Amino acid sequence: MNAEEAMRLAIGQGDQVKGGTYPNPPVGAVILDRDGDIAGVGGTQPVGGPHAEVIALRRAGERARGGTAVVTLEPCNHHGRTPPCVDALVAAGLASVVYAVKDPNPVAAQGAARLAAAGVEVRSGILADEVAGGALREWLHKQRTGKPHVTWKFATSVDGRSAAADGSSQWITSEAARADVHRKRAVVDAIVVGTGTVFMDDPALTARLPDGSLADRQPLRVVVGMREISSDARVLNDDSRTMVIRTRDPLEVIAAMSDRVDVLVEGGPTLAGAFLRAGVVDRIVAYVAPILLGGPITAVDDVGVLSIAHAQRWRFDGMDRIGPDVRLSLVPNDNR
Amino acid sequence: MNAEEAMRLAIGQGDQVKGGTYPNPPVGAVILDRDGDIAGVGGTQPVGGPHAEVIALRRAGERARGGTAVVTLEPCNHHGRTPPCVDALVAAGLASVVYAVKDPNPVAAQGAARLAAAGVEVRSGILADEVAGGALREWLHKQRTGKPHVTWKFATSVDGRSAAADGSSQWITSEAARADVHRKRAVVDAIVVGTGTVFMDDPALTARLPDGSLADRQPLRVVVGMREISSDARVLNDDSRTMVIRTRDPLEVIAAMSDRVDVLVEGGPTLAGAFLRAGVVDRIVAYVAPILLGGPITAVDDVGVLSIAHAQRWRFDGMDRIGPDVRLSLVPNDNR
Repeated sequence: MNAEEAMRLAIGQGDQVKGGTYPNPPVGAVILDRDGDIAGVGGTQPVGGPHAEVIALRRAGERARGGTAVVTLEPCNHHGRTPPCVDALVAAGLASVVYAVKDPNPVAAQGAARLAAAGVEVRSGILADEVAGGALREWLHKQRTGKPHVTWKFATSVDGRSAAADGSSQWITSEAARADVHRKRAVVDAIVVGTGTVFMDDPALTARLPDGSLADRQPLRVVVGMREISSDARVLNDDSRTMVIRTRDPLEVIAAMSDRVDVLVEGGPTLAGAFLRAGVVDRIVAYVAPILLGGPITAVDDVGVLSIAHAQRWRFDGMDRIGPDVRLSLVPNDNR
Repeated sequence: MNAEEAMRLAIGQGDQVKGGTYPNPPVGAVILDRDGDIAGVGGTQPVGGPHAEVIALRRAGERARGGTAVVTLEPCNHHGRTPPCVDALVAAGLASVVYAVKDPNPVAAQGAARLAAAGVEVRSGILADEVAGGALREWLHKQRTGKPHVTWKFATSVDGRSAAADGSSQWITSEAARADVHRKRAVVDAIVVGTGTVFMDDPALTARLPDGSLADRQPLRVVVGMREISSDARVLNDDSRTMVIRTRDPLEVIAAMSDRVDVLVEGGPTLAGAFLRAGVVDRIVAYVAPILLGGPITAVDDVGVLSIAHAQRWRFDGMDRIGPDVRLSLVPNDNR
């Protein structure tokens, strides 16, 4: 197996643990033996547990000696709750280490330099764009900006409506698309809605499995706005924790969630517009259903644009069929 | 080359002549010799010229004897402006004929039966769905319903707007998407807009090549509505013919275009809504740009839907990247 194939496998390992590792990064690792055969694979465990490299090394055992470690992120070089991964890699007698993305965290970084100093051959950059745009995207954003990564998700008819003229909206998208949203909810840190959505739809905002049961991980539920919400609201039930933030300012919301990495905004037109105008949305995910609704209700009202020359410009980075629907994913055009 | 591979080649031949053959169908044909090698290919020529089978047979010459003809449509069996294709196929000594779609036209049909009676082995149905949904779609629709096939095309931001709040809309989509529209214009029979669009945008509604010059084929331009349009309107220039229909009723518009096969509706919200409410749209093509606009201007206002339970339900049958944009194609959910 060559390094790129192994990196694809490592990416898969990272994808599997995404959501369970924060504030640590969801890293994947593969150990190849001297002959290039897979000796062990692993993904980072929840905080306090071993990192991906250590899991993969344990599985490889003696086969790691003289082999290659393929890791999605530069191995860490600091004592946190676990010893530095570089120590484990050196101790295992690896001949080389290949990683995709450099660690931007100055405390953890310098892992590559330390490995090289110990006589390990180091290569970087393999499938770096894919990794940086994939499982590590939100964590890298947090490292670079100090702020959580914010995804705005909405469901829409192909003519851009989020509800029919009478306000009915259940359901615009298919069961398959809704299951996809529940999978996404299970990997984020927090879900944000406005008080308007709580009044209108009374959502539980939990992550559920296809059989209706609660997923193992539940995101923090965050309700934003100045209106008082009823103590009977489903968002206040015991299925997860809930934070109520009495503000209309997205920047205050972001500040209140500074310990979070991956935040999903599911709010209605008012909240979504406020986040978009404030420039704090890092990804847009649109579930587009093959239906026409017409009427006055759109997913967002005012994004602060008056003229086409000042349109908010994004870039499609994903387009997938989800059952009968289409999922479009966008990132800011400036690669911020 | 097997029959399916040959059919793919025949489909390509049909695609190439699409737009130039109406009222005849844009058919593609491939002649394989006894050994299964390509002996000749062809697409139907403009009215009065030879059909696809005849072109391909001419190119194959003596190599057709004992070979196989692979054709997208059941070969015709009637004397129109040209002799029946079945006669040419029998005369060429073909051992077998493979076609994708049966000819629904009772005058031209029975070609398969006539071939079988002449001792030619006949197979049908190969890649039939692909052909019926591809180059022959509009012609088959016309044969079955007696009405032209109507495609509604619109450009939209990802949040469902067809213009910014101040009315500016040039351009929502990219140069690549606009070039794609011009290619589509060059293969349709007619383009329909409302008088509102003529007043607002003053479009020429011509098909242009990327260098700005006029394409060889120009569709009929159709302006619909009760308002008087200026004699200076670009849609009335000499680049193509123009029909002005003083009605707001889509059924009257369709009736006035009963000699057409493939009609493109490019109108604004009022015209599009009228066509959609009347149920006379057979395909929707949405060019979705990765921009946000917000504001009150959407591609369609009223599609006759009040509640989500009565949404117009369609089905995605295409999803493509066109430069930075996404092109979504939809057909009615009932496969009408």
